[in-house]
Amino acid sequence: MTKALIIGGGGMLGQGLAKALAAKGALAGSALSGVTLFDIAESAIPSGLPGASALTGDLSRPDAACRLIADRPDVIFHLAAIVSGEAERDFDKGYRINLDGTRYLFDAIREENARSGYCPRVVFTSSLAVFGTPLPDVIGDDQVLTPMSSYGAQKAMGELLLADYSRRGFMDGIGIRLPTICIRPGKPNAAASGFFSNILREPLAGEPAVLPVSRDVRHWFASPRAAVGFLAHAAEVDTGAIGGRRNITMPGISVTVAEQIDALREIAGEDAVALIKEKPDAAIEAIISTWPKAFDAQRALALGFVPDRSMQDLISVYLEDHAPEAVRARWQR
Amino acid sequence: MTKALIIGGGGMLGQGLAKALAAKGALAGSALSGVTLFDIAESAIPSGLPGASALTGDLSRPDAACRLIADRPDVIFHLAAIVSGEAERDFDKGYRINLDGTRYLFDAIREENARSGYCPRVVFTSSLAVFGTPLPDVIGDDQVLTPMSSYGAQKAMGELLLADYSRRGFMDGIGIRLPTICIRPGKPNAAASGFFSNILREPLAGEPAVLPVSRDVRHWFASPRAAVGFLAHAAEVDTGAIGGRRNITMPGISVTVAEQIDALREIAGEDAVALIKEKPDAAIEAIISTWPKAFDAQRALALGFVPDRSMQDLISVYLEDHAPEAVRARWQR
Repeated sequence: MTKALIIGGGGMLGQGLAKALAAKGALAGSALSGVTLFDIAESAIPSGLPGASALTGDLSRPDAACRLIADRPDVIFHLAAIVSGEAERDFDKGYRINLDGTRYLFDAIREENARSGYCPRVVFTSSLAVFGTPLPDVIGDDQVLTPMSSYGAQKAMGELLLADYSRRGFMDGIGIRLPTICIRPGKPNAAASGFFSNILREPLAGEPAVLPVSRDVRHWFASPRAAVGFLAHAAEVDTGAIGGRRNITMPGISVTVAEQIDALREIAGEDAVALIKEKPDAAIEAIISTWPKAFDAQRALALGFVPDRSMQDLISVYLEDHAPEAVRARWQR
Repeated sequence: MTKALIIGGGGMLGQGLAKALAAKGALAGSALSGVTLFDIAESAIPSGLPGASALTGDLSRPDAACRLIADRPDVIFHLAAIVSGEAERDFDKGYRINLDGTRYLFDAIREENARSGYCPRVVFTSSLAVFGTPLPDVIGDDQVLTPMSSYGAQKAMGELLLADYSRRGFMDGIGIRLPTICIRPGKPNAAASGFFSNILREPLAGEPAVLPVSRDVRHWFASPRAAVGFLAHAAEVDTGAIGGRRNITMPGISVTVAEQIDALREIAGEDAVALIKEKPDAAIEAIISTWPKAFDAQRALALGFVPDRSMQDLISVYLEDHAPEAVRARWQR
């Protein structure tokens, strides 16, 4: 019987993972006996999740992690983070949650390891933000980490902690660097990366969207479904095959904005494409120009992580998993 | 007028730096008006050091750094660390000093920055221990950091903090990854790297030394004098030329044990070489096999960091700067 803990269980990926676990009913080769969703606010519990409970708390308080580890979950997904923009605006909060919170969690595991030999699988979500310019067009698995944001620095430090605590035998960690999620469900947001989803999601709903960069901008994506698949696979993969380098860039698809728009046209036609308004924004263009364009994610592929197949898939996943019913009914084939 | 603070002022490099500053009398283009040596025990103060004082304290206590920063030193050398072997034996102590201590220092600077715009040059000593296998024979400036010790992980995290705090404008930091110091003065020690110095220093004094690895082992070295030169140059180099990548591998010389022994023979003859006893130690050989052999330290050279010229230089520096008088008199030409 496997007990799982999802820290950040209320977020998009946490909820997607919880639904996937409810559907699977098992993890790491045995039936799920309990799943705890932990977040700052109470997480929704998807139907059919075995032994589910929702806990609230603040991971940046040292006692929060101890309370979670007292239950000795077999698999811990650590998805909680202050996102990039907020970590840049609020320096203290970013370090408090993203670095201290992660370390409190790992230390609570280490203390239980010292008491009882407890050694859970820990799946940590890292980010492409650990990379910084100059970057090659296609980034290999041995790219040096030079974050250009506090968020990226905090994630890179989390990766180092995860590798060291795993090397010491306190836990069995794996860090996965997720591609940018597309199509992100919900409302348009003001994040610099928001337009990558907005220009697809909004026109599918008959709404206008703004494209602030040129159509030859290229970036690296995964659908929410693929990302949830990475998390579940990371909980089950044989870490003996990983060696000391416990942090792995996930596979994705590398597409240009033009290719995004072509896929939208194919599924929703020229009228949908016409809803995209080009409004060049030099500030956003400058930010995006420093971001990765593509990876050669050989290690992840060799370990069995499965990427999306195409840009069309990214739209289909949105229609199947996330779109409002009216939008789904209109376009689904 | 420049005020300098040396954290770890009592150690080999701190003392060497203090002597060099006493001889220079100036730093970063203006006369030295005060130099504070901080360490866990009281540091010796070399003669002629302007406005010198020695303070004691524990950097892993949050208030220690605040006290040091209250004086607003223009240049801060952060050399204090729990060394590799001890950080591996005492996990908590290593993280407390090497990670928390570094962060307390940087946060004390950040707080003074917020109050007054204070923005000192901070020179942080990092280590080759940030690198881990597999490594190429010659390591470039873009090698990925994959530490294989807690000490290496802590130094890599210190590098990330330094880069982020500098990018945010809280301080003007530069991290320098020092080569292995050779010849390390003093007594033989049991560190895995100790033999690289022991097999030279001890025979020069007419004492036997043990060589636990084969003669074709290759490694990367700097003399204490070159390392002190790196520190002083790092205090003065134009960080505008460095860009976002604030952590730099220092130049050194790549020599084999056989080449070390050849240099010893050249200076001290066959009788000295005969004092080296080969006692293969599989455990030490295994540790050393994971260490860097050579670097192509282009960035450091372009920034004006000056390495030693030869293995013979490393022996000469020892005789001139560190050897007991009788040893110096016997071999110096």
